[in-house]
Amino acid sequence: MTATHVTLREVALRDGLQIEEPIPTEAKVELLEAIAATGVTEVEATAFVSPSKVPALADAPDFAAELARFPDIAFSALVASPNGARRALDAGLNSIEYVVSAADAHSRANVGRDSAAATAAIPEIAAIAHDANATVEVIIATAWDCPFDGPTPAERVLRIVDAAVESGADRIAVADTIGTTTPGRVTALLDRVRPAIGGLPLGCHFHNTRGTGLASAYAAVLAGVNRLDASVGGVGGCPFAPGASGNIATEDLVYMLRDSGIAVDVDLERAIAAARIAQRLIGRTLPSALLRAGDRLLR
Amino acid sequence: MTATHVTLREVALRDGLQIEEPIPTEAKVELLEAIAATGVTEVEATAFVSPSKVPALADAPDFAAELARFPDIAFSALVASPNGARRALDAGLNSIEYVVSAADAHSRANVGRDSAAATAAIPEIAAIAHDANATVEVIIATAWDCPFDGPTPAERVLRIVDAAVESGADRIAVADTIGTTTPGRVTALLDRVRPAIGGLPLGCHFHNTRGTGLASAYAAVLAGVNRLDASVGGVGGCPFAPGASGNIATEDLVYMLRDSGIAVDVDLERAIAAARIAQRLIGRTLPSALLRAGDRLLR
Repeated sequence: MTATHVTLREVALRDGLQIEEPIPTEAKVELLEAIAATGVTEVEATAFVSPSKVPALADAPDFAAELARFPDIAFSALVASPNGARRALDAGLNSIEYVVSAADAHSRANVGRDSAAATAAIPEIAAIAHDANATVEVIIATAWDCPFDGPTPAERVLRIVDAAVESGADRIAVADTIGTTTPGRVTALLDRVRPAIGGLPLGCHFHNTRGTGLASAYAAVLAGVNRLDASVGGVGGCPFAPGASGNIATEDLVYMLRDSGIAVDVDLERAIAAARIAQRLIGRTLPSALLRAGDRLLR
Repeated sequence: MTATHVTLREVALRDGLQIEEPIPTEAKVELLEAIAATGVTEVEATAFVSPSKVPALADAPDFAAELARFPDIAFSALVASPNGARRALDAGLNSIEYVVSAADAHSRANVGRDSAAATAAIPEIAAIAHDANATVEVIIATAWDCPFDGPTPAERVLRIVDAAVESGADRIAVADTIGTTTPGRVTALLDRVRPAIGGLPLGCHFHNTRGTGLASAYAAVLAGVNRLDASVGGVGGCPFAPGASGNIATEDLVYMLRDSGIAVDVDLERAIAAARIAQRLIGRTLPSALLRAGDRLLR
């Protein structure tokens, strides 16, 4: 049941940058070039959301125009509404992620409506994507805990899973938005989610806020999950989730997986190089462990 | 097979402090008082090794004299030779840890002799301990990797395990001295070690140098290991192993285990408080995640 190969989605450009001071589009292209050099096959490029709420991603259409130069990468963009989905497709994306918070308080803070209302928009967004021959992934945020509501009942997650499956979503992901979950609870939730998704690809998104991100990722892999989000340098956080900080670092995840005998199509040294560029562009020390310690000394 | 209860051994006072500038014995007592308040039942107090090589622990006899004030804690001290074992017992310890490096180069750097020579001293040290009605744990250092020799063949670990068992050692532990191992290799080595130890208690010691410490600890727990070393704040490293840094942090480990449904007799808030004291005494930011992020926000 353990996954033997993991598809890593690089999220530094969206989840990584969204909480930061805006950096120029050209700087994002520089970072994307370094990311592309790692060999990663999937990249979350940006989000088509309110420019006033997420100014760091206000250049989404301009940045999207640069993506055609990287034909080997499958790009996606996050959206939070039907309008955002249309904007992403108009900008040339052919893969969108619609994020729905399982917890009402985070949902309201994030998109101004509760989880049920956000869930109700899944069919419309799926139809918008499919009408444009694009795919849609439903990402379930605060799948384990909400910074306001506390632990999220699994039933709240499963309601969104059911709506996604019924709406013909192409992929599903569960996200530990605030970096509080741990491997035991990862296993427990995945045991509930997996039977509900039929044959759909299932991904996980972890933050390392409490140091448990890699352990949770490993538990997910043991449970058969073969799609994981990570960001070079470990940048990232949710501006509407107090206490969130740091996606799991791409290079740390690659190190752990490969050393554990699980294949992942990302070059480790180039991921560390990309993390170094992210650190320079963002201008502060990033939390990645490999960025500090390097790969194992003798190989 | 997964352990349902973990005994945590607090190693901040030995492995944590040994690489640091020496702090006064009174400061160690202050830290120990905070550690005792966490409810932890086992504490590695100090090491009886060369004061010139490890000046931070040169006060071992003086510090050992303070331990009787903490009758609820089972204290141990690390030794690297028969002479060190005698000094520890003379100082009142009734539990010693004899560390043997599985890799020759680290062994020579650490104690000036190769792994076979260090292994050959196990019977004498076990006899010294048992003659004094004390117990002896054999800790196998560089059990996965050596900073000089690279990956450690499992056979090197198993030779030490066999010698320990034959000598009547009371406990065995395997240590990732330089923080390079990952959960897959933890599982693989434990699969080899466990059948060789009979019914002896088996512990693991991980560093978080490459961010994988908690993931490795979780893999060990899944493999049935119920004894783990950790240090408040994540202090610690080996001065003779370049690149080593940071034990796994007690508070991060406790958070992960308890949240995963695995019992551990350490109070989390008090562990964070002890980490804060360690940070003040050492005078630099410690790598613990919980020390920065706190416990989960709503509980």
